[in-house]
Amino acid sequence: MQPPIITLTTDFGTADTFVGAMKGVILGIAPDAQVIDLTHEIPPQDVQAGAFTLASVYRYFPPGTIHVAVVDPGVGTRRHPIAVTTDDATFICPDNGLLSYPLDEARAFVDRDPFAMGRVAVPRDWHAVHLSNADYWRQPLSSTFHGRDIFAPIAGHLAAGVAIASLGTRVMDLAAFAVPRPRTAGDTSIGQVLHVDHFGNLITNLHPANFPDGRLRIRVGGTTISGLSDAYQDGGDLVALIGSSGTLEIAFRNGNAARTLGVTVGADVHVISRG
Amino acid sequence: MQPPIITLTTDFGTADTFVGAMKGVILGIAPDAQVIDLTHEIPPQDVQAGAFTLASVYRYFPPGTIHVAVVDPGVGTRRHPIAVTTDDATFICPDNGLLSYPLDEARAFVDRDPFAMGRVAVPRDWHAVHLSNADYWRQPLSSTFHGRDIFAPIAGHLAAGVAIASLGTRVMDLAAFAVPRPRTAGDTSIGQVLHVDHFGNLITNLHPANFPDGRLRIRVGGTTISGLSDAYQDGGDLVALIGSSGTLEIAFRNGNAARTLGVTVGADVHVISRG
Amino acid sequence: MQPPIITLTTDFGTADTFVGAMKGVILGIAPDAQVIDLTHEIPPQDVQAGAFTLASVYRYFPPGTIHVAVVDPGVGTRRHPIAVTTDDATFICPDNGLLSYPLDEARAFVDRDPFAMGRVAVPRDWHAVHLSNADYWRQPLSSTFHGRDIFAPIAGHLAAGVAIASLGTRVMDLAAFAVPRPRTAGDTSIGQVLHVDHFGNLITNLHPANFPDGRLRIRVGGTTISGLSDAYQDGGDLVALIGSSGTLEIAFRNGNAARTLGVTVGADVHVISRG
Repeated sequence: MQPPIITLTTDFGTADTFVGAMKGVILGIAPDAQVIDLTHEIPPQDVQAGAFTLASVYRYFPPGTIHVAVVDPGVGTRRHPIAVTTDDATFICPDNGLLSYPLDEARAFVDRDPFAMGRVAVPRDWHAVHLSNADYWRQPLSSTFHGRDIFAPIAGHLAAGVAIASLGTRVMDLAAFAVPRPRTAGDTSIGQVLHVDHFGNLITNLHPANFPDGRLRIRVGGTTISGLSDAYQDGGDLVALIGSSGTLEIAFRNGNAARTLGVTVGADVHVISRG
Repeated sequence: MQPPIITLTTDFGTADTFVGAMKGVILGIAPDAQVIDLTHEIPPQDVQAGAFTLASVYRYFPPGTIHVAVVDPGVGTRRHPIAVTTDDATFICPDNGLLSYPLDEARAFVDRDPFAMGRVAVPRDWHAVHLSNADYWRQPLSSTFHGRDIFAPIAGHLAAGVAIASLGTRVMDLAAFAVPRPRTAGDTSIGQVLHVDHFGNLITNLHPANFPDGRLRIRVGGTTISGLSDAYQDGGDLVALIGSSGTLEIAFRNGNAARTLGVTVGADVHVISRG
Repeated sequence: MQPPIITLTTDFGTADTFVGAMKGVILGIAPDAQVIDLTHEIPPQDVQAGAFTLASVYRYFPPGTIHVAVVDPGVGTRRHPIAVTTDDATFICPDNGLLSYPLDEARAFVDRDPFAMGRVAVPRDWHAVHLSNADYWRQPLSSTFHGRDIFAPIAGHLAAGVAIASLGTRVMDLAAFAVPRPRTAGDTSIGQVLHVDHFGNLITNLHPANFPDGRLRIRVGGTTISGLSDAYQDGGDLVALIGSSGTLEIAFRNGNAARTLGVTVGADVHVISRG
């Protein structure tokens, strides 16, 4: 028997003991669980960043891994706590858009302005529940720390073998924001920066399949880069390459592309064919 | 058999390898231990902050969990390294006040000015030892890193089943600072800020049981808040609510209350009945 | 059976999910592995700092521990990914100098200017391979994240029992920089600061065996310290003592020696006999 894996993604930071309290509650219920920190440095209450982060890493874990994400500006209000199982993974989080990327990949489209919120139908092969069964919560329930009092014990119970259907009432739609999609205009593909990483690299939504034919120029932040590189150390100071998530990424050799270009999340990136 | 759990709370930061060395030593002695970081970001040598942090989280771990706390300005001097078992937990730390909150809760009072140090009798149902038995230390003993050379191996040996009585001579009193206690003056309860968390929320020592009757006003940092909220997103920008530790907490909606109010640890908080 | 231990040392930070992706890949291959973070705060692309950090901690782990170090400015270029077994440990990293300290300790000297790069013969009792067998990589291989695609799966396979000889072709020399060595001039030993820790303490390469006889003065950053202390709290504000790695260390009582003295890595430290 392999120990169950539970990952944690939060905006709690690591200076306080919010994360420690969650781990204590989990291990009290599922003592053999492997609890893995993904990150606790999501910018406070930044659901978009939490959603990107979760989406960029969950697929590297074995199927069946339980992913707990707590970026929860609405804690204690009417937003629902949810658990969702897909083919790949189980997610436990508030119903506030944190699952936008997996929903987008499962073709549960939100056809709105980039990052605008809406509700989408739960894909057919998913199972989503509102965590309404208080028997599986920690008592007394606080109004400010559902990470410790709902999400952590639910993760523990799922790891210990409780069926998701026991945890609450099934829901048929979920909150999601519209993930920006690249578009094509003539010989140009226009995408967006979805994330700026620790090194200042710009991660975009442009897959090589979206690129126009021919030799390429990349325009971002008022600057033009000629052609794609194979590695960070190839080419000039500013390089465009296919990054580790499989999409176009802009990096600055031994430096910080975001700061150098003055560019952040949401900025347009143009990939232009030189014919 | 459940794997033993060992938590770590230090001021070592995570940029160096102090914590890694402790984990290596622990796992060399107790290979199946689950070693959990509570935080390593206690401000350097801030025993009060370490004590608050430890107290705010240890009770969420299963009974029998071993909590190692190393905030140790006196390392290498005459302060004793200790291990203490209570009904709830085992603590391993220097005898310098890190256990002030559990001692206060066990009614081993220090009747002094807030945060002033003294010695208190070990509660009857606790067992406290001076870690004087060098057989259970790492050799050679350094004078500057008892985390690696005393506290980590002791945690490993306790996790591996060594009895606390083997580790050294029993002690009957421990160092503690006086935990500030709220007081009542007429229709007002006056408490203190004990901690400022990662979000800038102010955590106080005021339990609802201390509140005067009637509708409430809360005064802190020259500002008055009307009434208690149920959630961070309720009420105005500045909210007072019962936080996740069960005491009064002051938060600033989508912002930082400590910075906004210019308030830090030790500041008075008044809860006033409006009759 | 004890669970295999895998440690991680990187410059990835903890805000992104690079580390999480590595852990997911490892646990997918070796589900019972204990994955321990040493640090992810190596300054970006600072191979010297990564090498010092790794060297300062690996020996505290049980023999057989697998240490993965990824500080890899040349990712995607011709530098080789390697795995190396010694008596003490297994290392997995790029071949870029990260193993300079263990090589230096094994007397595989680089006789050059301090920190200058060269190649040295693999010690007789080590086994080093170029990780050339793509069967043990994650596919598709990215050109920018060998931590996830090569180093993590290799760590998982070694933990799961794969023999190092299966992982690629044996190599007989490795990249290393010259570790600075103290020298003696008359009644003075001259060493260097190798590292500045989280507290601002200066860690040097001066072992007590290098010291001249008699009462000592220590000169660093234009200041002179008289004699060695036994603990951080002994002596004046600025103290010199034998630190937890067994070498001379300069600390500032309740403060930051590096900032106070304006001294950083590479600075000379003089130990002078007063006769």
